Amino acid sequence: MPIYRAPLRDMRFVLHDVLRSVALADLPGYEEATPDLLDHVLEEAARFAEGQLFPLNQTGDAEGCTWDDGVVRTPKGFREVYRDYAEAGWIGLAADPAHGGQGLPQVLHTAVDEMLCSANLSFSTYPGLSTAASNAIAQHAEPWLQALTLPRLVDGSWSGTMCLTEAQCGTDLGLIKTRAEPDGAGRYRLTGTKIFITAGEHDLTENIVHLVLARLPDAPAGTQGISLFLVPKFLFADDGSLGTRNSVTCGGVERKMGLHASSTCTMHFDEAIGWLVGTPHKGMRAMFTMMNAARLAVGVQGLGIAEVAYQNARAYARERLQGRALTGAADLDRAADPLIVHPDVRRMLLTMKAYTEGARALAFWVGLSLDRHVCHPDAGQRREAGDLVSLLTPVVKAVLTDLGSEVANLAVQVWGGHGYVRGNGLEQYVRDVRIAQIYEGANGIQALDLVGRKMAEDTGRLLRRFFHPVAEELEAAGREPALDVLAGPLAKAFGRLQQASLHIGSRGLADPNEAGAAATDYLRLFGLVAMGAMWLRMAKAAQAHLAAGTGDEAFFQAKLHTARFYMTKLLPQAQALALTIFAGAKPVMVMPEDGF
Amino acid sequence: MPIYRAPLRDMRFVLHDVLRSVALADLPGYEEATPDLLDHVLEEAARFAEGQLFPLNQTGDAEGCTWDDGVVRTPKGFREVYRDYAEAGWIGLAADPAHGGQGLPQVLHTAVDEMLCSANLSFSTYPGLSTAASNAIAQHAEPWLQALTLPRLVDGSWSGTMCLTEAQCGTDLGLIKTRAEPDGAGRYRLTGTKIFITAGEHDLTENIVHLVLARLPDAPAGTQGISLFLVPKFLFADDGSLGTRNSVTCGGVERKMGLHASSTCTMHFDEAIGWLVGTPHKGMRAMFTMMNAARLAVGVQGLGIAEVAYQNARAYARERLQGRALTGAADLDRAADPLIVHPDVRRMLLTMKAYTEGARALAFWVGLSLDRHVCHPDAGQRREAGDLVSLLTPVVKAVLTDLGSEVANLAVQVWGGHGYVRGNGLEQYVRDVRIAQIYEGANGIQALDLVGRKMAEDTGRLLRRFFHPVAEELEAAGREPALDVLAGPLAKAFGRLQQASLHIGSRGLADPNEAGAAATDYLRLFGLVAMGAMWLRMAKAAQAHLAAGTGDEAFFQAKLHTARFYMTKLLPQAQALALTIFAGAKPVMVMPEDGF
Repeated sequence: MPIYRAPLRDMRFVLHDVLRSVALADLPGYEEATPDLLDHVLEEAARFAEGQLFPLNQTGDAEGCTWDDGVVRTPKGFREVYRDYAEAGWIGLAADPAHGGQGLPQVLHTAVDEMLCSANLSFSTYPGLSTAASNAIAQHAEPWLQALTLPRLVDGSWSGTMCLTEAQCGTDLGLIKTRAEPDGAGRYRLTGTKIFITAGEHDLTENIVHLVLARLPDAPAGTQGISLFLVPKFLFADDGSLGTRNSVTCGGVERKMGLHASSTCTMHFDEAIGWLVGTPHKGMRAMFTMMNAARLAVGVQGLGIAEVAYQNARAYARERLQGRALTGAADLDRAADPLIVHPDVRRMLLTMKAYTEGARALAFWVGLSLDRHVCHPDAGQRREAGDLVSLLTPVVKAVLTDLGSEVANLAVQVWGGHGYVRGNGLEQYVRDVRIAQIYEGANGIQALDLVGRKMAEDTGRLLRRFFHPVAEELEAAGREPALDVLAGPLAKAFGRLQQASLHIGSRGLADPNEAGAAATDYLRLFGLVAMGAMWLRMAKAAQAHLAAGTGDEAFFQAKLHTARFYMTKLLPQAQALALTIFAGAKPVMVMPEDGF
Repeated sequence: MPIYRAPLRDMRFVLHDVLRSVALADLPGYEEATPDLLDHVLEEAARFAEGQLFPLNQTGDAEGCTWDDGVVRTPKGFREVYRDYAEAGWIGLAADPAHGGQGLPQVLHTAVDEMLCSANLSFSTYPGLSTAASNAIAQHAEPWLQALTLPRLVDGSWSGTMCLTEAQCGTDLGLIKTRAEPDGAGRYRLTGTKIFITAGEHDLTENIVHLVLARLPDAPAGTQGISLFLVPKFLFADDGSLGTRNSVTCGGVERKMGLHASSTCTMHFDEAIGWLVGTPHKGMRAMFTMMNAARLAVGVQGLGIAEVAYQNARAYARERLQGRALTGAADLDRAADPLIVHPDVRRMLLTMKAYTEGARALAFWVGLSLDRHVCHPDAGQRREAGDLVSLLTPVVKAVLTDLGSEVANLAVQVWGGHGYVRGNGLEQYVRDVRIAQIYEGANGIQALDLVGRKMAEDTGRLLRRFFHPVAEELEAAGREPALDVLAGPLAKAFGRLQQASLHIGSRGLADPNEAGAAATDYLRLFGLVAMGAMWLRMAKAAQAHLAAGTGDEAFFQAKLHTARFYMTKLLPQAQALALTIFAGAKPVMVMPEDGF
């Protein structure tokens, strides 16, 4: 049976020591978000995740969601735990108090989300989609629609979806065919079929509001002719009481590789009644404004799975006796030594640990930047934080989900044959996290967003938001003997990233395929450097504690060891990625189509 | 629905043009193995794999093997297709004609095996285990036992297993507890429980012979006290007719991540009757002598899945319309361009193609070396070929299975959400191939075999068998302008491999953890260089055809393009791996156990 203990000590380290969360309470609106309050919330979330969500993870996978004539049932126990989750207020943790939310910082929401994903990734998708839908509604819907829907999404009595994908298009939403006809009374009638709709139908809430991309009759072709609509499962009166069933039906749930307890639905809209959200034909823009948070959330799915996979690999490596240490038996009283004595097993564990903790620091940093972007009293600071969020969002989404898969697979490898057996729970992590590399914009699309959009914006303004502070931190670290050993490899990789940025920037102008062919390697390089920068910050914070003699020495020493492992054993990938980028687009583009 | 067409054109290219199979018929015993005959056998195998095995792959996954009170049933259709497979003589393709085999070369068996694994990996495990068991019996059992069992294993009326793993040990077989007591009549009584026994029980054959590792009463502790026994499901008379049921029972089949149609059994031996195979206490050695072929076969599993996954990704990338080429619409008559116009999709496809074809050349080369090792009339040549096989076997096993997983995951990524859905068949490849990185010696163990055993043997004699010809080929290629562009990057990576070998060789002597910590990175580096050497050979063969104007230009040009992609876009990983190796063991070993 797998285990999970929320990594509260590590989370506190990142929040308080590395990101200096004490400054959060200085932001208007977050006056109550003191470190003590954050810790309290984290402890409550940990209790819920460990005690209620985690026990349903394997049973949910085994049972899955069932579809019967349009009715979808979630696995045993999900209804009860969802009710408790909603009643405890977790769905509205970061939501506006005006709608019943708790108005707590996004970075705290990110930390709680990590626990949710570690404990039960399938479950996390239901409140996750409600949050995504709420963001879109809060930013773009008319006030009366906000007033009716948001309190119910926040208190969990209703849930939300995002209906984008159709059979013929996922990435290229310009191909959407679903139509919306005005009914003359300010409403619209939607007709079409959406697929892969997470939480499209289920038995957890009394109503579901679908945010649907569709075309108005006069819509231009392509992405410039797509509008966003809110289409509820049940129509509602002005007081929110439920009326007749809308003509939205679930045609089936997908049988998938993993994430079995999350319903993935085919949704038929048959002249279903809906309301326009935002401006006609500007639906894509409305989607994009809420995408940063959603993409950060998917990145956190990768982080959550990495954490729980690592914990289980570590536990097994300590317990399982197999072979003897290469330098001679470590424990003659036992028939064999534990796996953890073997350098190759330690290499796997440290890879998992370094990636997971680096990923956490990066995700939390972006979460904190979201808070600063929204709440900081200074416009320049808000803009700077917003730039960082824009730049790092595709990196977090793609790199953290890629690493989530990598770490889950390493955990299976540490467990050996026992990792491949279903009852032990390890292989489920591999299956569950795999979709995170695909949905909410496949990782290749994130890479194109980074090189095609974010890099180019205002001739590199976003890049400078990241490059300048990292350059300063590297310079400062170079003057501290204890950190210099870490700063050296990072400076080298950082140099490669800067060269690669210039290379793509100049080549990509002349030939967009140059940017396209380099995109995925560049995003990975960026992510490695960004996590390296996080490790430098973590090492600095740990070093400060050690120098001050604040106790907990083993914890801070472990941070320094892991930072060193990251810099010397993982970051060298940056050299190879840079070489690959410099090799240009020709090796990719020269092959004729029938040569494949 | 997934597709599969046996890659006969590519196989012929490797066999005839790259490996010059024409020389096979010069080897004593292989007089009939002319290129024409090889082609004929390949075509027949392709017909069987495509027409009979492939259609059962998805249904077998969905249905799985069932266990009922000790009886194991394979999925619908498996019995019939197994009977046809056996009757056509495929199981004995490379087996000794003295036992009813066809006595054809191992390299041909490797090619046929690739098709089998592409078409139906689960099915392949049943004949695969029979072959493994036959090899052990042929090399170590007494003649009477060989005469009774081998013809039946070869004609497929019986099947075989390898019973090694127990609950407390997989990698460390020194911990085995199963006991064997002599019964005074030349037989033994075996008692114990084995787990993860592939094909341990099923309904395909009338009898099953288990090769079981167990301890004799006077056995020394550890691996020096393990003996090998043959234990049949049904006892048999001297004429091979079946007698009473032996006390071997199947306690259950595992529910696994994948490979559902391959039965993975818990086997209970309760004073079961068996015969010693080989020398008392030398069972491990008997196992090892057959392991080269078995490990090569598992590597081919990775290759087979990579091939079929690539084919499906390629087909989807050509058909699926999504987005427009970055340089402007490629096909204005259609609503969107096919995926294959996008550089990042091409990058994924070329990665898959370059790895798969490089893996094939490497696996076939090792297969051919096995033939030369067994049949060459010159003792020096036999020894040289045997050295190459020993050296490259762990590389083939680990690298090809790692790449099999990587390529299968890339195929899912090309398919996007549709790749994650079970009915489309792509995710099955990810689930099925994952175990190949674990069984038959986990890939970390292969790496230790390479650095701890193979590198060290006779102060690097095995390494020189590979290094010398590669150095010569690089030098020759450097003089040919058409190949020089490929030789440059390969020479650089080859230089890193030589440096890394020296580094590990010298450091590992002083501290075995230095070798252990570098092992996995070194094996990967070795595999990248070995596949690079294969790509240089393939490019040379393609270039020769183009220069001679033998036709089929597009095919040979595609080989040159893929070679260039490999050298410039994949081989740079060698630089990072070398840096990681040079960083030494300290970053891995310094962490205290409670710091993880």
